[in-house]
Amino acid sequence: MAHAQYDVLALGNAIVDVIARTEDDFLLAHNLEKGSMRLIGEPEAETLYKAMGPAHIVSGGSAANTAVGVASLGARAAFIGKVKDDEVGHLFTHDIRAAGVGFDSSPALGGPATARSFILVTPDGERTMNTYLGACQNLTVLDIDEAQIAASSIVYLEGYLWDPPAAKDAFRKAAAAAHKHGRKVALTLSDSFCVDRWRDEFIDLIRTGTIDILFANEHELRALYVAARTEDAIEALRAENGLLAVITRSEQGSVVVTREETLAVPVFPINELIDTTGAGDLFAAGFMAGLAQDKSYRDCARLGALAAAEIIQHLGARPEKDLAALAAENGLA
Amino acid sequence: MAHAQYDVLALGNAIVDVIARTEDDFLLAHNLEKGSMRLIGEPEAETLYKAMGPAHIVSGGSAANTAVGVASLGARAAFIGKVKDDEVGHLFTHDIRAAGVGFDSSPALGGPATARSFILVTPDGERTMNTYLGACQNLTVLDIDEAQIAASSIVYLEGYLWDPPAAKDAFRKAAAAAHKHGRKVALTLSDSFCVDRWRDEFIDLIRTGTIDILFANEHELRALYVAARTEDAIEALRAENGLLAVITRSEQGSVVVTREETLAVPVFPINELIDTTGAGDLFAAGFMAGLAQDKSYRDCARLGALAAAEIIQHLGARPEKDLAALAAENGLA
Repeated sequence: MAHAQYDVLALGNAIVDVIARTEDDFLLAHNLEKGSMRLIGEPEAETLYKAMGPAHIVSGGSAANTAVGVASLGARAAFIGKVKDDEVGHLFTHDIRAAGVGFDSSPALGGPATARSFILVTPDGERTMNTYLGACQNLTVLDIDEAQIAASSIVYLEGYLWDPPAAKDAFRKAAAAAHKHGRKVALTLSDSFCVDRWRDEFIDLIRTGTIDILFANEHELRALYVAARTEDAIEALRAENGLLAVITRSEQGSVVVTREETLAVPVFPINELIDTTGAGDLFAAGFMAGLAQDKSYRDCARLGALAAAEIIQHLGARPEKDLAALAAENGLA
Repeated sequence: MAHAQYDVLALGNAIVDVIARTEDDFLLAHNLEKGSMRLIGEPEAETLYKAMGPAHIVSGGSAANTAVGVASLGARAAFIGKVKDDEVGHLFTHDIRAAGVGFDSSPALGGPATARSFILVTPDGERTMNTYLGACQNLTVLDIDEAQIAASSIVYLEGYLWDPPAAKDAFRKAAAAAHKHGRKVALTLSDSFCVDRWRDEFIDLIRTGTIDILFANEHELRALYVAARTEDAIEALRAENGLLAVITRSEQGSVVVTREETLAVPVFPINELIDTTGAGDLFAAGFMAGLAQDKSYRDCARLGALAAAEIIQHLGARPEKDLAALAAENGLA
């Protein structure tokens, strides 16, 4: 197998986050389910933005956040996703490149605006996301370059790609190309509501061996197997052939599950929980950066926990500290 | 005198901040003087943005930040400033209105884009600002509504208004209208480099009684009186007739200076210094909110210190906590 140019090539929705702190009352008044990600159209996006408080605007997007985390940990990352050639699209492009991630997807010249997620952060640090997909709907198989896939050790795909119809085909093309060239395919389940929408297809991706590595939090995992208890869902997971699964359990840490073993790894301590947005994305970044450095699963999960701990202590889902330096300080270099 | 509709009407440059964390090396490499505010043109803005790291985009502007702080403390605030009718201008307008500040200045339909300040925050929390004034240059006397001035207890003006040529006339018109209607005029010196550019005119504003209240940090005050020591500058200040001056001295707290007394007030303790942007703006907000509530100068300065302490513990110069609640928790309601 040829030497890889990238450790991780992430494929996902290219989104800019509009983040406002809010009280729980606002969620109730606007009928928003705390902790969820909900898709909204342009008129609703305008209404919600008008009603919400002053905002921080920071690049986001689940898989894009992961790519930035991988790069911040000193591994090599690239991202594929669709923005429009507008101000918000320029901002996304600037930020991901400035973070050291390869990003060459051509922007859409027409059609809907660059995607925005209106994120409401309650005093408990929980985030509730309302996403206008916009230009993400223009991501197609034409955006997948087989040579780039072939040059990437892991192709990382977000479950959210199941929402814009054409992206699903891009996802399948990327996964097939990765396996053709002896590369690994990873999937994050993204969100329990997303799993509810696409359960059968996600199960099918696992059963057919389309994916090799699965990232999920316990809500998503329980939604996948329609299980009341996380333990039961983990049992179901263990029965999947040849899968490496990593389950995050908020303050209870993470569990690495393979047919052979189940390994529990604790969280890193934090000073203050500010905003949980991106916790799962950065956990996946840490884990995959660990894989790129041939670390043990335990150390991969510790790197994931370290990156997640950084991200939840400030607004926004892109790291604000040099994660490689943070890893070195914590004996994980 | 008629009952006032607003406690504070702030007039300033309407700016959106593009904030990136950076190392000191970056400032050296780009010849930037740490802690300063420098004006840049559009080509340099593009070059700098391209070179700088991933950013948070948050509404800013010195006097606008102050107006938001006043509103967050439960007093009534309005703002006058010029944006363009573009995406960044919409963002500024959304944020200031969402913060409860009256903002009715008509946006420019043509001409340069809404102003941006590219702010580099070093690990010591110091900010270095590079401001593209853009649409701010279209603020003119036409934007000053005498009726609104007449209905505001304090008209607060930022020294930075001396930079865009037409804004100076708007400033003078607002100050004259305020005095005509028996209102107070406050000025912040904004920045020591700004004082260097406009020293004689600022001294003239003080000597002619055009302003009643002066806010400055010690660097700005020393620049104003070309004094090597802050104490000497404060002596010079005490000789100015009928002026209420409030000098901030970073971690050494603030000093309220009138002909009759000099009152030193300490800072509020903080957990972690993240970004000093807006410290002076929010101090002025607290002080004026205190005046609106007929507090003693000491309590006005304590409110200023409280608001400044909140702002320097996160990225961006707009408060992220409800300052009125914070004041109540600290016995300053």
